[in-house]
Amino acid sequence: MALSVEKTSSGREYKVKDLSQADFGRLEIELAEVEMPGLMACRAEFGPSQPFKGARISGSLHMTIQTAVLIETLTALGAEVRWCSCNIFSTQDHAAAAIARDSAAVFAWKGETLEEYWWCTERCLDWGVGGGPDLIVDDGGDATLLIHEGVKAEEEFEKSGKVPDPESTDNAEFKIVLTIIRDGLKSDPSKYRKMKERLVGVSEETTTGVKRLYQMQETGALLFPAINVNDSVTKSKFDNLYGCRHSLPDGLMRATDVMIAGKVAVVCGYGDVGKGCAAALKQAGARVIVTEIDPICALQALMEGLQVLTLEDVVSEADIFVTTTGNKDIIMVDHMRKMKNNAIVCNIGHFDNEIDMLGLETYPGVKRITIKPQTDRWVFPETNTGIIVLAEGRLMNLGCATGHPSFVMSCSFTNQVIAQLELWKEKSTGKYEKKVYVLPKHLDEKVAALHLGKLGARLTKLSKSQADYISVPVEGPYKPAHYRY
Amino acid sequence: MALSVEKTSSGREYKVKDLSQADFGRLEIELAEVEMPGLMACRAEFGPSQPFKGARISGSLHMTIQTAVLIETLTALGAEVRWCSCNIFSTQDHAAAAIARDSAAVFAWKGETLEEYWWCTERCLDWGVGGGPDLIVDDGGDATLLIHEGVKAEEEFEKSGKVPDPESTDNAEFKIVLTIIRDGLKSDPSKYRKMKERLVGVSEETTTGVKRLYQMQETGALLFPAINVNDSVTKSKFDNLYGCRHSLPDGLMRATDVMIAGKVAVVCGYGDVGKGCAAALKQAGARVIVTEIDPICALQALMEGLQVLTLEDVVSEADIFVTTTGNKDIIMVDHMRKMKNNAIVCNIGHFDNEIDMLGLETYPGVKRITIKPQTDRWVFPETNTGIIVLAEGRLMNLGCATGHPSFVMSCSFTNQVIAQLELWKEKSTGKYEKKVYVLPKHLDEKVAALHLGKLGARLTKLSKSQADYISVPVEGPYKPAHYRY
Amino acid sequence: MALSVEKTSSGREYKVKDLSQADFGRLEIELAEVEMPGLMACRAEFGPSQPFKGARISGSLHMTIQTAVLIETLTALGAEVRWCSCNIFSTQDHAAAAIARDSAAVFAWKGETLEEYWWCTERCLDWGVGGGPDLIVDDGGDATLLIHEGVKAEEEFEKSGKVPDPESTDNAEFKIVLTIIRDGLKSDPSKYRKMKERLVGVSEETTTGVKRLYQMQETGALLFPAINVNDSVTKSKFDNLYGCRHSLPDGLMRATDVMIAGKVAVVCGYGDVGKGCAAALKQAGARVIVTEIDPICALQALMEGLQVLTLEDVVSEADIFVTTTGNKDIIMVDHMRKMKNNAIVCNIGHFDNEIDMLGLETYPGVKRITIKPQTDRWVFPETNTGIIVLAEGRLMNLGCATGHPSFVMSCSFTNQVIAQLELWKEKSTGKYEKKVYVLPKHLDEKVAALHLGKLGARLTKLSKSQADYISVPVEGPYKPAHYRY
Amino acid sequence: MALSVEKTSSGREYKVKDLSQADFGRLEIELAEVEMPGLMACRAEFGPSQPFKGARISGSLHMTIQTAVLIETLTALGAEVRWCSCNIFSTQDHAAAAIARDSAAVFAWKGETLEEYWWCTERCLDWGVGGGPDLIVDDGGDATLLIHEGVKAEEEFEKSGKVPDPESTDNAEFKIVLTIIRDGLKSDPSKYRKMKERLVGVSEETTTGVKRLYQMQETGALLFPAINVNDSVTKSKFDNLYGCRHSLPDGLMRATDVMIAGKVAVVCGYGDVGKGCAAALKQAGARVIVTEIDPICALQALMEGLQVLTLEDVVSEADIFVTTTGNKDIIMVDHMRKMKNNAIVCNIGHFDNEIDMLGLETYPGVKRITIKPQTDRWVFPETNTGIIVLAEGRLMNLGCATGHPSFVMSCSFTNQVIAQLELWKEKSTGKYEKKVYVLPKHLDEKVAALHLGKLGARLTKLSKSQADYISVPVEGPYKPAHYRY
Repeated sequence: MALSVEKTSSGREYKVKDLSQADFGRLEIELAEVEMPGLMACRAEFGPSQPFKGARISGSLHMTIQTAVLIETLTALGAEVRWCSCNIFSTQDHAAAAIARDSAAVFAWKGETLEEYWWCTERCLDWGVGGGPDLIVDDGGDATLLIHEGVKAEEEFEKSGKVPDPESTDNAEFKIVLTIIRDGLKSDPSKYRKMKERLVGVSEETTTGVKRLYQMQETGALLFPAINVNDSVTKSKFDNLYGCRHSLPDGLMRATDVMIAGKVAVVCGYGDVGKGCAAALKQAGARVIVTEIDPICALQALMEGLQVLTLEDVVSEADIFVTTTGNKDIIMVDHMRKMKNNAIVCNIGHFDNEIDMLGLETYPGVKRITIKPQTDRWVFPETNTGIIVLAEGRLMNLGCATGHPSFVMSCSFTNQVIAQLELWKEKSTGKYEKKVYVLPKHLDEKVAALHLGKLGARLTKLSKSQADYISVPVEGPYKPAHYRY
Repeated sequence: MALSVEKTSSGREYKVKDLSQADFGRLEIELAEVEMPGLMACRAEFGPSQPFKGARISGSLHMTIQTAVLIETLTALGAEVRWCSCNIFSTQDHAAAAIARDSAAVFAWKGETLEEYWWCTERCLDWGVGGGPDLIVDDGGDATLLIHEGVKAEEEFEKSGKVPDPESTDNAEFKIVLTIIRDGLKSDPSKYRKMKERLVGVSEETTTGVKRLYQMQETGALLFPAINVNDSVTKSKFDNLYGCRHSLPDGLMRATDVMIAGKVAVVCGYGDVGKGCAAALKQAGARVIVTEIDPICALQALMEGLQVLTLEDVVSEADIFVTTTGNKDIIMVDHMRKMKNNAIVCNIGHFDNEIDMLGLETYPGVKRITIKPQTDRWVFPETNTGIIVLAEGRLMNLGCATGHPSFVMSCSFTNQVIAQLELWKEKSTGKYEKKVYVLPKHLDEKVAALHLGKLGARLTKLSKSQADYISVPVEGPYKPAHYRY
Repeated sequence: MALSVEKTSSGREYKVKDLSQADFGRLEIELAEVEMPGLMACRAEFGPSQPFKGARISGSLHMTIQTAVLIETLTALGAEVRWCSCNIFSTQDHAAAAIARDSAAVFAWKGETLEEYWWCTERCLDWGVGGGPDLIVDDGGDATLLIHEGVKAEEEFEKSGKVPDPESTDNAEFKIVLTIIRDGLKSDPSKYRKMKERLVGVSEETTTGVKRLYQMQETGALLFPAINVNDSVTKSKFDNLYGCRHSLPDGLMRATDVMIAGKVAVVCGYGDVGKGCAAALKQAGARVIVTEIDPICALQALMEGLQVLTLEDVVSEADIFVTTTGNKDIIMVDHMRKMKNNAIVCNIGHFDNEIDMLGLETYPGVKRITIKPQTDRWVFPETNTGIIVLAEGRLMNLGCATGHPSFVMSCSFTNQVIAQLELWKEKSTGKYEKKVYVLPKHLDEKVAALHLGKLGARLTKLSKSQADYISVPVEGPYKPAHYRY
Repeated sequence: MALSVEKTSSGREYKVKDLSQADFGRLEIELAEVEMPGLMACRAEFGPSQPFKGARISGSLHMTIQTAVLIETLTALGAEVRWCSCNIFSTQDHAAAAIARDSAAVFAWKGETLEEYWWCTERCLDWGVGGGPDLIVDDGGDATLLIHEGVKAEEEFEKSGKVPDPESTDNAEFKIVLTIIRDGLKSDPSKYRKMKERLVGVSEETTTGVKRLYQMQETGALLFPAINVNDSVTKSKFDNLYGCRHSLPDGLMRATDVMIAGKVAVVCGYGDVGKGCAAALKQAGARVIVTEIDPICALQALMEGLQVLTLEDVVSEADIFVTTTGNKDIIMVDHMRKMKNNAIVCNIGHFDNEIDMLGLETYPGVKRITIKPQTDRWVFPETNTGIIVLAEGRLMNLGCATGHPSFVMSCSFTNQVIAQLELWKEKSTGKYEKKVYVLPKHLDEKVAALHLGKLGARLTKLSKSQADYISVPVEGPYKPAHYRY
């Protein structure tokens, strides 16, 4: 797409695939609202007082129907919002269109190139006069990364006059990041530092982004407070687990229509995401084999009747491979060469480096046959057999299907709203330093409570004497911090 | 669509949505072949001897990718083939395109009107000079019905000069059938009788069609031999059960993206189809309630931990309703009025009369909002709440997704090929009278055996003394006819 | 035990372990009654009219608490009853005591020798003056066998003066049968023929016994009518499946306390019993591997995510082995030698010849260490590792636990009562020839219906027009005879 | 039993039910060793260096076969051991006999009175000259409680001359504790203070005991360091979850033989124990309803398809009730009165105050019928219907069956051994203050690793660059402290 910003009649900027899909997007947003009781409860509780009045929020998070409900919850609470997706394939174009038309500045479409992706991210952070956003909603940490790299480059440039050198890295994507920053330096050598100054904080959605934040906290590099939304129980033990249990088979079926029953499936990693994937595959009738580095997670897999082996043990016998590790270099081209004809290879971890796509693409003589968008058959010259790779190694549930369903995302996003409210409310109190925080347990329990009514549940109430007996307040929180659920 | 037959460069007739999708269809057909070992084994075993040389086969069966592999198996064995779909929404247009271009005469597209549907059926049966087909592959019995009604009308016309009166029936679809026959009488008053004469037999795919056949056998009205493929174990206990276990959630997810976990789902009917649906919903985390008329099936549901209640008991509390009964008038508009806002209502039984669509459409003041094709929200005026109806009450797995996956359809369709071979081979021997037959158990076992290797299974072999001990041949069949599996 | 008949104060014969356990047995019988609604409904419906008035019923069927409720249902309907167990380990001594004291002549105790077993069987059939029973309830067919062998011997003896020669067979158990018959010939050379004359018929409980009956029907050797209770849907698809799903893990846990989760379990045979066993093991967290001869059953196992291999493939890697085949020579001593230390080997099929106990017992240098009754560790001299064999290779759920639970046995036994009533009612009508019959479907459905209320189920009622549409009576039966459930 | 200490020929004290069961116990201990690879690995790794040389360990923990393997691991590492059970019904008498004869001083039998229970506890802590133990293994905290109450009383007595007054409490059990302490004051008014002086620390097994410890830490009352073994992942997420998933149905089946399939089961509490119980019941075919106070746990239950209601909602419809809360007053007599006839009521939480046994016992006109030990039917006079209470409201898996299986207890107990080693190693370093500690993650992972080989698992190894990428050491620990598994 030509990379030029467009404007609505009211003057709001956007860049989406097709604004005419807005009506369709609006219909699905309305359906989703019924499935997202936590967000709707936030609108009811906080809407009247407009707590985000005056706040600019930039979000880098899959631009789906569910995210649309999040965005419109933020605007319903008074915020101005700019948004981009955090994955080149995860945007639902009708959702983007509806939001662009009705609610917020959106820069996102399904099937961005990497250059387009980072252009969108930059647009999302750029509020024109007055610098950047007050608050960031991040997923995977790319918005946060861009600011941190930008500030680093500006400081180096001020000190030594040196500009970032895209050739200094082998990583194709990081080259682009450096190029953007280098080019920006020319027009405004303090752009990212101004952003940093204004920024109240970030709330981060996912394991991978959180890991980056803790690393920065460790080295003292973190430039603003961060709330780790991922580790709210109502996020990581719900979205990661139950969301993937839903969306992994959804992605597999939409991309390949393959019968899961009877197949041998390998799930690499048995964390929350892996647990959800393995459960879904087992329930669908596959025989599931898990690979793990962590003996505790491995033992959990065994207790569920799953076999624990190494990828090498099973690479030539399995039909379906899913990476969920959050680590890199899990399935290499050398593994892929040994797989059965039409073995399916996909990733549901945040980044695409779990699968060695570079090795595959550059394999001598390999042939890529695109069955349909996000479903490619790669044929090896030696054997003339092929494997099927989904979403080019990126998040297959978002690339090949529509991601997690609304209900579970309502849990995650209600945590986001609460985190953003908390950062904004405490912006001048010094409560939050340049560190990573998790939400207090009573808010976590509140998020859960907001989702019970929709499912017809009725909670039991503690009596005072029972509460005293187990030393908790009658109204909670009910568990110690270390409780694992 | 304008109802005119088109021709390929080689002169073969067709009518499909878009012939340019043939390449895409071909790619998916090639993937499906790998998943359909039974059909491919038939090609390997029988292809060389061309047993269908000279046979004309007409098929009325969902024109999907899997059916494409069936069709090309029939042509690989020497047959000439004409095809239509047996459901207005079930055609996959790229599959139809590939077959039309490469292999057989196809009249089918997704989203036919009822008039178009019956026009296609008629085209499929019309082989021009020399009358109709030698063999029919039927699914639901519509092709068989048309011939039987046609013959009846011709005989009445010959006897009394009376032509069928479309106004004699309230049933909108049957009106069309009568119109077609009436109009045909003018041009050729013995068309269907000539068809009947030529016809060797039909092999019927599904419960509903089989039921019709047995009723005709009962009354002596059956005009040609029929093989009941549905009641092969490798059909009804596989496709109906495991196929639906796969394709029901697939349809739900593609149509609505709804989170199944935590929801209350009602499955009407606990036969093979209902068992598959209930298993899928339970595994996805729903709480499943079954409605049943048969105490044995009800007790089976209870043994799996499912609740058995009447629809009236739960109509206002459930989130998802699925009909699987093969009966009519299961969910009436009066039920739908009482449902929760955005309750999902769908049918996975063969015919669309399980859900009272007519009652819904004619409900005073009701408003239909099409979210996307095959997903409609119907809003009742009194409550201003809506329900979501999938595929207009027709088979939701084919209307909203792609139907059963290839592997399980390979079982069903291998039975079809074997049935067609059997009818053709015995066409002059009198082995098959005008009755309904099931395939012998050793062929049923053979179908299963053809599918084991793909899944890495290794069978145990009976010793002679073991075989004698249980009084079966070493090579099978292994079970008495009444065995239930 | 000394083999002498004892008598109650009222003069009824018995031989049990310990009559003082009768109170305990009575308490458990009373609990079981609440769980056996089918039998209690029979008492309510038929008790007042005393249909068995004057009938002598002999039963050879595991003398458990559940059987006690069956026996007392028969007596409540007017019958006189004599009973023995059909397995040397399956008697629950407190159940036997309660029945012996209160209701019927019982000859059964847990841990009979084979000689004792056949003595009990003979006692059970011997009604003194007037010959044998009018009706037999059989399980596995031993009572039926004894009569058939007896008649054969008597006829031979009359013809040629030859008596049976126990040395003519290698089978230890059959030696005993021949001895009993031979010895009986001396005192009364027409005893079994008189029995045969009086006998109205037998109702047979289990697959194994039914197989014998069909073999005799085939060869014309069957001496009286037989009702195949096993193949009532409410028997074989309930007791065999759900009963074993319950009682297999129960037996394993009581015998060995072994943790099932994480273990590799091999289930030999995937019929109804194997399906129940495999489901139980999978649910408990084992990884289950199935061995099968029948490709259809094998494919069913695959569809449930189970691996299908041969015993040889996995013999040295699995932890638990269960035979369920109804065939012989499944696990041989040569397999057992290769198993892991403390692998558990057990059988839940009717006869003990699935496991090569003779091979094990006679293995040179093997050492048997009895952990507790029915749990033996057998140590091989070469490796000094051992395997654990349950119930000496006999039905482990009855040998090591208490067999199937009451509720599911209520289904089976209600079929028995109905079968016995049917035989008795038609004793003079000639309705039943010397053939094997199954109960009509409406009675099968009735048995199910009697069990729904206890579980809180509510059936849906067909309307007349719905019933007509699917061509069934409103009140059932609802399915064709070949329906598989 | 007469409360007098007996002595083995070697002079070791004991009091058990029947020393002649020692051989049987030994056989089962040998079987258990094969299933407890963690403990056996500890013997192999630490045995040679005899790290517990000179250490006196007192344990208050269910005296089962598994505990026997723990005790003999402690003695194999050089410790002297005295032991009692922490529940009046949980002792396996043959295990106690084997240990008493061969390895350690044991005071425990199945079916102690409360007086006997506390006498055993006192014996266990009493090492004669030199005061008490160096280390305590506690389960539920009763040993720790006795010392803390003892010290408190001694201090009060020293200060004011006041002795504890058993009449000051309504709690029957606490009366006994006060009596013991009061009586002890006379003979030695500094007995518990001497114990405290010597004590290096305690390792506590279970949630309930841990809760008490944290309360004491909070108020500063804790007298010695404590290691919270319960919250090792390899304990609470294994033993509590997978252990109960195994032992709950085991207890139900041994106690009542009830068919679980088809029943409605209520699980009160959905923590680790509740999750295990609910999973087991669901898998066995029950319909499971959960009661919860914590909205997060409630939402987890819903995601698994379980209904969440209050006890009042379902009390009259359910068949089986299980308490797992760790709280008190869950099922009151007023609930029990409203239950169905023969509803089963049981507790698997640590203490027996979850079920209102006192209310039941003192209900006017209630009748108790003991079916067999630990299975009582209580009949209410108004309705003449009864409920079945297991193990008198105490831990039903230990009272009615044999508790958790060896394999999962090996995880728990390996944590115990490691905790004891840690306390003993650091006894003079001041590393541990009078606080509650959990074991470091690398030890937790080690425990898991020791259990993988037995189940045939093969771990994947991180490469250095992968480890760096996720910022963990190659050899672990792999997860942050807050990770929930």
